[in-house]
Formats: sequence, C-alpha cells, structure tokens
Amino acid sequence: MTSDRIRHAGLAAKVTDAASAAALIRPGDTLGMSGFTGSGYPKAVPVALAERIEAEHAAGHPFRVKVWTGASTGPELDGAMAKADGIEFRMPYNSDPIARQKINAGEMEYFDLHLSHVAPMAWEGFLGHMDVAVVEVSGITPEGDLIPSSSVGNNKTWLELADKVILEVNRWQSPALDGMHDIYYGTALPPNRVPIPLVKPDDRIGQPHFRIDPAKVVAVVETDAPDRNAPFSPPDDTALAIASNILDFLTWEAKRAGLPPSLLPLQSGVGNVPNAVMAGLIETPFEGMTAFTEVIQDGMLDMIEAGTLRMASATAFSLSPEKAQYFNENAQRFRDRLLLRPQDISNNPELVRRLGCIAMNGLIEADIYGNVNSTHVMGSRIQNGIGGSGDFARNGYVSIFMTPSTAKGGAISAIVPQVSHVDHISQDVQVIVTEQGLADLRGLSPKQRARLIVEKCAHPAYRPMLEEYMARAAKGSYGQHAPMLPGEALSWHQRFMETGSMQA
Amino acid sequence: MTSDRIRHAGLAAKVTDAASAAALIRPGDTLGMSGFTGSGYPKAVPVALAERIEAEHAAGHPFRVKVWTGASTGPELDGAMAKADGIEFRMPYNSDPIARQKINAGEMEYFDLHLSHVAPMAWEGFLGHMDVAVVEVSGITPEGDLIPSSSVGNNKTWLELADKVILEVNRWQSPALDGMHDIYYGTALPPNRVPIPLVKPDDRIGQPHFRIDPAKVVAVVETDAPDRNAPFSPPDDTALAIASNILDFLTWEAKRAGLPPSLLPLQSGVGNVPNAVMAGLIETPFEGMTAFTEVIQDGMLDMIEAGTLRMASATAFSLSPEKAQYFNENAQRFRDRLLLRPQDISNNPELVRRLGCIAMNGLIEADIYGNVNSTHVMGSRIQNGIGGSGDFARNGYVSIFMTPSTAKGGAISAIVPQVSHVDHISQDVQVIVTEQGLADLRGLSPKQRARLIVEKCAHPAYRPMLEEYMARAAKGSYGQHAPMLPGEALSWHQRFMETGSMQA
Repeated sequence: MTSDRIRHAGLAAKVTDAASAAALIRPGDTLGMSGFTGSGYPKAVPVALAERIEAEHAAGHPFRVKVWTGASTGPELDGAMAKADGIEFRMPYNSDPIARQKINAGEMEYFDLHLSHVAPMAWEGFLGHMDVAVVEVSGITPEGDLIPSSSVGNNKTWLELADKVILEVNRWQSPALDGMHDIYYGTALPPNRVPIPLVKPDDRIGQPHFRIDPAKVVAVVETDAPDRNAPFSPPDDTALAIASNILDFLTWEAKRAGLPPSLLPLQSGVGNVPNAVMAGLIETPFEGMTAFTEVIQDGMLDMIEAGTLRMASATAFSLSPEKAQYFNENAQRFRDRLLLRPQDISNNPELVRRLGCIAMNGLIEADIYGNVNSTHVMGSRIQNGIGGSGDFARNGYVSIFMTPSTAKGGAISAIVPQVSHVDHISQDVQVIVTEQGLADLRGLSPKQRARLIVEKCAHPAYRPMLEEYMARAAKGSYGQHAPMLPGEALSWHQRFMETGSMQA
Repeated sequence: MTSDRIRHAGLAAKVTDAASAAALIRPGDTLGMSGFTGSGYPKAVPVALAERIEAEHAAGHPFRVKVWTGASTGPELDGAMAKADGIEFRMPYNSDPIARQKINAGEMEYFDLHLSHVAPMAWEGFLGHMDVAVVEVSGITPEGDLIPSSSVGNNKTWLELADKVILEVNRWQSPALDGMHDIYYGTALPPNRVPIPLVKPDDRIGQPHFRIDPAKVVAVVETDAPDRNAPFSPPDDTALAIASNILDFLTWEAKRAGLPPSLLPLQSGVGNVPNAVMAGLIETPFEGMTAFTEVIQDGMLDMIEAGTLRMASATAFSLSPEKAQYFNENAQRFRDRLLLRPQDISNNPELVRRLGCIAMNGLIEADIYGNVNSTHVMGSRIQNGIGGSGDFARNGYVSIFMTPSTAKGGAISAIVPQVSHVDHISQDVQVIVTEQGLADLRGLSPKQRARLIVEKCAHPAYRPMLEEYMARAAKGSYGQHAPMLPGEALSWHQRFMETGSMQA
C-alpha cells in the first residue's frame, strides 16, 4: 500500500486518505501549514478540507480556520480554502490571487509580518495556540524522522508546537533532496538564547531531518503532485536595464570597498529582474559567490552550473515548472551546492548582518525621501506581504530596491511624493534603481536624497511633477528638514483612484 | 602644568589650549565627535571652533564642517556651532534646539540613522572620509590608552578612522568611571564578522580603555566642565497613568509567558514616563533585573540602589544635574553595576534579539494601524532623530511605544488616521500605551489593530473622529485590507497647520 518513502512502521500504519485526515480538523482550529513561495506546501489535505468546508457551509454550518504558513503556498491550499471561504485569519504571507481578493474585500483577516519573526513569536505565545500542523515532507526515515520537502519554512516550529500533526508525503519531490537540509535545533527563548554558530553561508549547524513525536501524528497522506512553480518570465528591456544598473553598481562598489572576488552573499527576491541580475552576474569577473537568501530561483541554478555561484543557502525553492523538472532530474548535481534552512535562520537578522548580505528586493513605490512601500497598493490593498524584505534590508551590507519607474502603462509612477504605506524606512534603503538609473542614497540628508531619486530614478513623464511638488513643499512645508505638504502628499494616489492615472 | 589625568608623557607634551586645537580643523573637514545624550561630548574645542568660524564668517570667508557624533551633545557643541552657522551636515542624532531650528529652516543638512548602523557604515566607507576626531576622555593611562568618559558612543570608531585626533581630558568626570567601560575590539567587516560573544547583559567582552596611536593625536586639551544633563521632570498624572498601564502589562505578560523573576533586560528611552516606569518597577515583585539599553537615566540608579536592578549595560549616562553630582560622589558604589559599551554593541540587533530586550520607547504619533512616527512633527519638522528606537523595537522580545494621548493642550492627537512619517512599521510595534489604556497588538490584522488602538489609546475627544474616519474608509478605500483614504489620511496634519488644532 504505502510507498517506499515511508519507512517507519508506526507512521506507515497511519496512512490514510486526505478526506479522513481533513476530518480531524475542527472549525476554529489554528493550522500550521508548510509551504514557502509555492513549494513544499500540502496539496491534498487542504483541498479535502476545502471540500468539507463547502459542504458544511451548504448545510448552513459555519466552518472557518486560521492558517499559518511559511510564506506563500499554491492553489490547492490558499486558493481552494479561500474560495471555500474557509480561512478566517491568515499569516504571514500570501500571493494567491483568490485569497488576495478575499483579503482586499475585507472578507479575510490577514496579518503580515517579518518572516524571521514568525517562529520566535509563535514560540513566545504571541500568536495564540496551534491546534494542527499539516506539513509536506519528502519521506520518513526508518527511525521516524522526517525528510523535509522543497521548502523548510516554519515546519520545525509547527511540528513542535501543534497538538496534532498531519503529514503529506509527496513522492513527486526528488529523493535527492535528502541531505540538502540543515535544521538547526539550537534555538531557545530569552533569556537562554546563544549565538547562532554560522559564519559562512555553507556552514552546517543542524541536522538533515525533522524530529517528530510519532504519537502526535494523527494521519499520513501520500501524494504525487508538483509544486506550484510560477512560469519563468524572460526579462524584457526594462528588466535588463535595471539589472544592468545593478551590475554596474556592484562592480563599482566591490572596487570602492575592496570586497573579495566572491563579493558578499546575495539575497534576492523572485522575478524577471532578479533573474536578469543572476544572468548578468555570470558575465562579471565575480567568482566563487554565495547566496544567503530566502529562495532559490532559476537564475541561481544557472549561476551554479556556470560555476559563478559556489553555493546557495535558502529556505525554499521557487522555480519555474521547466526548472523544477530539470532540478528533479539533476538534483544529485546540486547536492553539495544547496542548503535549505528554517526561515528563522535563513532570514535571521543576526546572520544577515554578520554575513553582510547584498539585499536586492522589489517594491511597489518609493517616495522622494527613499521610503519604500512593498505591500499596499494605494495604501490599502495588500499585494503579497513584507516577507523577508525587512529582515534583509535593515541588516544587510547594502540594501538595494529595484522597480520599473512606472506601472500600468505609465498610469502609476513608482516614485511618488509620499508613499501611501511604509514597509522600509529611508534608513533601510541605501540604493533605489529603475530602468532610468540608480540612486546611491548612502550618507545623504532627506533633501539630497530627494534630488537624486527624482533625477536618477523617476520616469521623465513624472519628473516635472515631482520637481513642482518639491518646489511647493520648499515653500509651504511645516519644517524644511524633509519638506512635505500633508494636503497634497497622497494626492497622486487619490487621483489614480478617481481617474485611473497619477498623471495630472 | 598638566593634571594627573594625563599620565602618558608623549601625550602630556601635546597639551594645548582649545583655540590652538581648533586651529587644526579646516573648512570642509568631517569631524567625528564624542557625545551621547548630553554626556561625554567635547566642551572646549567646539566652542573655540565656533568662535573661529564666526570670525572667519565676519571676514567674509566660508567655514563649515560636517559633524558626526554618537548621539546628542550639548550647547557647547551643537548649540555653539549651529549658532555660528558652522555645521553644513550633521549626523546621526540631535536634540539641540538651535541646531534643530537650523535644520528645520533648511539651513543645515541632517542625516538621521539607526544608532547601531553608524559605526559599521562608517567603517564600510558609506559615509565618507573622517578628517579629525574630537573626543572627550576622562583620563590617559601611563601606557597611552584612553579612559573613556561618561559616554562611549562611536568613539572607538572615530579614534580609529580619523586622520587626526584631538582629545579633551575632562577632570569633572569621576575617576571611578575607570573600569566601568567594556570596549569590544572583536568587530570586523563582512565577510570576516564572527558572533559577538555576549549572552548576558553583564558579560564583559572587551577591555576598559580605548587604544590610540599616539602619533595621530595632534592636540590634548584639559577641561573641567559638567555634562549637559537635562533637568529631571517629575512624573505628572499622565506619566503615572502610562507607567501604571505598562507595569500592569509587564506583570501580566511575565505570568502569561512564564518569564523569570528578573523579567528580561530592559531598554528604555529617557524622560518622565520611563522614570515613572522605573520607579514603579521597584514596587513590583520583579527582582535581579537587568537593563541592556542605550542610556542610564536617574530611574535606573534608583533601581540599583533599591536592589531591584542587578546591573545596567548602556553606552552613556543621561542624568539630571542632581543625579550626576550624586553619581560622581558615589560612583564607587555603582562600579560593579554599570557597563558602558560602544553604541554598535549596546544597540546591536544580534544582541538585542538574543537577550530579548523589553523595548520601551516614546513616540510623536501613531496611526490606527500601529505605525509609529518618532521623529517628524507634521511629517517634515525633525524633532530629534530615530536614535536607537529601531534597533530595539524590531529586535526586542516585545516592543512597547508610549505617549500621552494628546499634545499641545489637546490640539494634537497622538493617534491619527495615518502617521505623517513612519519610523516604526506596524510589524515592529507590539504594544501602544497612553494614559487612556494599553493596546496589545500582537497577532492582530490591520482592522483588528485599528479597533483596539482607537478604543484603548485614543483620547475621548478624538475617538469619534477616528471612528468616523474608519467608517468612511470602510466604504471608500481602494482595498479593505487596511482601509485608508489618501485624500483624507493626512488631513488632520493639514488642519493643524492651518488652524493650530487637529480638532475639526
């Protein structure tokens, strides 16, 4: 019956179907689910739970649960459960379109927090009690330890905190994943915390498998289903121009600061701009590089195969379907090059600062003073969440934010008088880059930053509007440290809401 | 000629007067000065430099310098030099009223950054070249090492980075300071950083004195002058109510989380509310407490003498004149109870997170979602600076922000629809407390936070206005995740600028 992925007799005896496992979840439960950037999330139990919820709703019975994860999951989890109106509260990150729509319609509460903070806050009891963990693994050892899947996320913490555990064993995941994980068991709560003994991205400080108390496991479900894996979008001219500006800066900065040929560990978000940066780095003289980051995307595998990237440490994969298939077929080749860790380690401020990561993240909008909004469209509509951007932006060697200078065909300027929501304060933003150019904001006062950002980063269609605003603010502001006009600072957003364009 | 505070012959030979020392500074120089919260700043050379600058200006010669410090200084430094129009650029923190006026008049550029970031960014060359360090010490050993003064701040870094060093030896400082400092020399830049080996607030990880290359010392000036030392303002009813709310919370939280009787290391800003909290803690059952914080204020010395506080680690004193005199007369009694460290250690995120500090900081305004403005009045006029609040708020065990619910006799509400500037994003704000009550925001979505903050923290005079705004935003917002109206969100600030009151 059970596959060779489940080698522990006691746990093999708990194999059941998804519907039976989902039946163990009660209305109002708090669920700790696996999953990070569309990889390693449970794919059968959430679907079965959504079906059960829909049936209960049809019968007039309320049924909603609270869902905690690592980060984003896939349509079988957030999509199916949000569609069923089954999620009452969600944290800490979501990118599912149906869940996003529900959140922004005010039908689902969403708590968005630093990804490094989730596990410690859960342990400290800040977030409430966890009833059931639903965690995908790639196998179970004869000793009953769990071989992690394509993401680690908060799984160690969920397995420890939950009253009951439901496991999904996904045979789609490559057996070669076994050994690529480094699960650190040295965490403790204050006053008993000690230094995390990691000084290089490739240091192993833990063990390859999760421990689990088999008595807590109430069901084991077998699956054979791929991760979500968003399609790879090839870089367009804008992305290439942004990447080129970043590569120029990194080359210049390495020379200025005397950084080693391996530069410093890279942290990078996902998307076509980061992939273009990765592709560009293959062509630079940098060598023996490392990544200490959240996710391993297509570009990093290319860099490893090109010999440019020595290794990457992350908490999850985030690959295109083609690259995921390639990885599964060639996983052995990457075994010594990749390490997946819990997200409270991959994103840990202590480690990000110690290693001096080069933080590269996207944004929705930046203002003339260098404050960055990564999350809230027009100040109120959540896009995804802050994710790990704050963990890296505040603590890295240098914090780079990148974006096309406009969105929606020019109707939205990425550079505005004042951001409608702040995720990254100007102190945590050293460089802003668009296809127009790059603003190196280090050591500059607010007015100096404003002049540089408008000159280097704003789209020419919006530059005169920004200059006019700055001129008016220089007259009408309450103070002249960081001139601003409260009656006008958010008027571009208001105009967009009224007319569909920020253009006057 | 020279006092017994200068026991190194080579450096004793460099003793000169303040005017001669100031003459070694050139127009355009970048100066690294000592000083943190009004203690340990140079008191003679800046005055002499200001006089020289005024004379040059009177003769039609431009003369301005860039001034970097630990944090705030005193009238003899920021006051005198700003009055002389001698500061072209200032960082990272200022509380001097004349300098503040110049900054807010647009006559002085000011760069406000996380106090833990200053030294690493200076070392990494992000901030430019340092020409001259002007550092107050309390003495010079026979070996030529420097006995730090009443603040450590960035002095270690300035002494290392500057081309030339001017020392002020201040015999007003207690000789008993010698031995109270712990100067860590284990810092390195990435990729060579290692864990900071501190696991308890009282761990000594460095040495008591600064090293200095005597060849770099171009002048030594003797002084006998008190630190600035702001008067102690006794807590009023509002401060006592805020403190009482905080003490109730800490008592409840310690029980909920099973914290030890020593609680967790305290971090606290300066002022009458923190002093009221300290006074209140003496009456609680907590015992053997510690502080891991920026500054040692009056209340902490009281706690030590009451036996409640076992020890305090900080980077500076910030005492009232009476308490400073008391300390100088009784310093021996505090020798084993106080440690002063460089500010990149006292405020280090690695250590703040490891120790799990209880972060207690003031604010100017908070919004209904829990974003905090600590620095910019009406979004544009700088008050002081972010200081170390971000270092502690993001990384501590719990981050508490406290404020009276109104200012200026009720004309300003501390709780507003949207803050006019963000220093602390909602993720870094777990508790907001006013004299009205305390909002525990942990684990809450934006709308849940808004309801609680308005109910618990807002002044009754502003509560209906906030509720009306929330009701309108629930209809007109672009998204319903964190409802907001860009055309109205900052209207309270606009109204204050136009009418002198936020009241409609």
